[in-house]
Amino acid sequence: MGRPRHTAPQRQGHSGREQILDAAAEMFSEQGYEATSTRQIATAVGVKQASLYYHFARKEDILAGLLEGTVKPSLALAAKLPRTQEPPHIRLFALTFFDATLLCQGRWNLGALYYLPELRAERFAEFRRDRLRLKRAYGRQIGDGVKDGLFTVPSVEVATSLVFALAESVISMRSDGTEVDTAWPQMIATSSLRLLCCDEAQIAEAEREGKRLQELVPAG
Amino acid sequence: MGRPRHTAPQRQGHSGREQILDAAAEMFSEQGYEATSTRQIATAVGVKQASLYYHFARKEDILAGLLEGTVKPSLALAAKLPRTQEPPHIRLFALTFFDATLLCQGRWNLGALYYLPELRAERFAEFRRDRLRLKRAYGRQIGDGVKDGLFTVPSVEVATSLVFALAESVISMRSDGTEVDTAWPQMIATSSLRLLCCDEAQIAEAEREGKRLQELVPAG
Repeated sequence: MGRPRHTAPQRQGHSGREQILDAAAEMFSEQGYEATSTRQIATAVGVKQASLYYHFARKEDILAGLLEGTVKPSLALAAKLPRTQEPPHIRLFALTFFDATLLCQGRWNLGALYYLPELRAERFAEFRRDRLRLKRAYGRQIGDGVKDGLFTVPSVEVATSLVFALAESVISMRSDGTEVDTAWPQMIATSSLRLLCCDEAQIAEAEREGKRLQELVPAG
Repeated sequence: MGRPRHTAPQRQGHSGREQILDAAAEMFSEQGYEATSTRQIATAVGVKQASLYYHFARKEDILAGLLEGTVKPSLALAAKLPRTQEPPHIRLFALTFFDATLLCQGRWNLGALYYLPELRAERFAEFRRDRLRLKRAYGRQIGDGVKDGLFTVPSVEVATSLVFALAESVISMRSDGTEVDTAWPQMIATSSLRLLCCDEAQIAEAEREGKRLQELVPAG
């Protein structure tokens, strides 16, 4: 009575694991990570706490599972980029577009969880490493573009941080309640190339060719 | 015994109010907002809870005070920009540089608190309105620049969101542990103009002239 309704009989996701992740995503996003207990999550999914523990020993493991889903697919694309033989501006466009699209997707704005002080704990070292690896993948495309004379930047390190921030800008937009539609990832990828002083003709080429590379990674 | 040491006898800030804000900034940033009680904050400052309540009736009021400090100074600058008679690229550079500098400053990365689900509550309506007002101020400089033929963007709204995100990118960099030095705000302001397809000669002019406008607002 008077308690929040979290007892949807069927949640998104087929497996028990996915249903737990979906319920936790909602509750972490809506009421906060600290304020959510594993008991509440189990109730929301409609399972016993023992069933929840079968999939996730601790609440931290659920959060880690959610966070990993925000970087692993983009890392998978980044790993395939070198073999494409595409020039750096097309590779960077593809990575930025894919990553921004991933962060736009899903009912819950999971990137907002990046700012939890809890993420400094050892349990999240793998996630932090993966996100850094993703940032370095941006840095490789930018560095290659500078070497090939496609980009002009005062510092590859700074340019990498700013392009990475542009991709992640959808997190703050979603957090502000801005309607982030499918046009945003393209505009972010284009703006990233502009920031790098890429030639307009090459930007137009990246817009035409970059999206094709999305197919390197199976749609989630 | 074994409890975290929060009993520094002298905290940053002269007045009781400032000492409370400083202690709360540390605790919200380090252990989380939800996990911090007003009792803990009072202990950290070395005052009775009654003294804390004299300044802030509730924990939410302390958070609101901290958040307002991250936008009010930039809003004060934005309000003075129209009267400067400066062209839009110089005004936008000044605003971006000032705002990014403000978010770089301070021991605690208070912008990370923007992502708390608690901020959707009515108590934070004023802060949300102020942040939106600040974003609109970016939009005005960008819109003016488009009208004057200085900027070329497919959509002023999208460009505004992306430039605003670049200014706030220092929040995610600080959150990741990146060493954000005084060179970053300048690079962010310059990159914003590049993203808007501003001419390189005009970017150079904005870099020379834009910082002077900082003096419109007294240093905090």
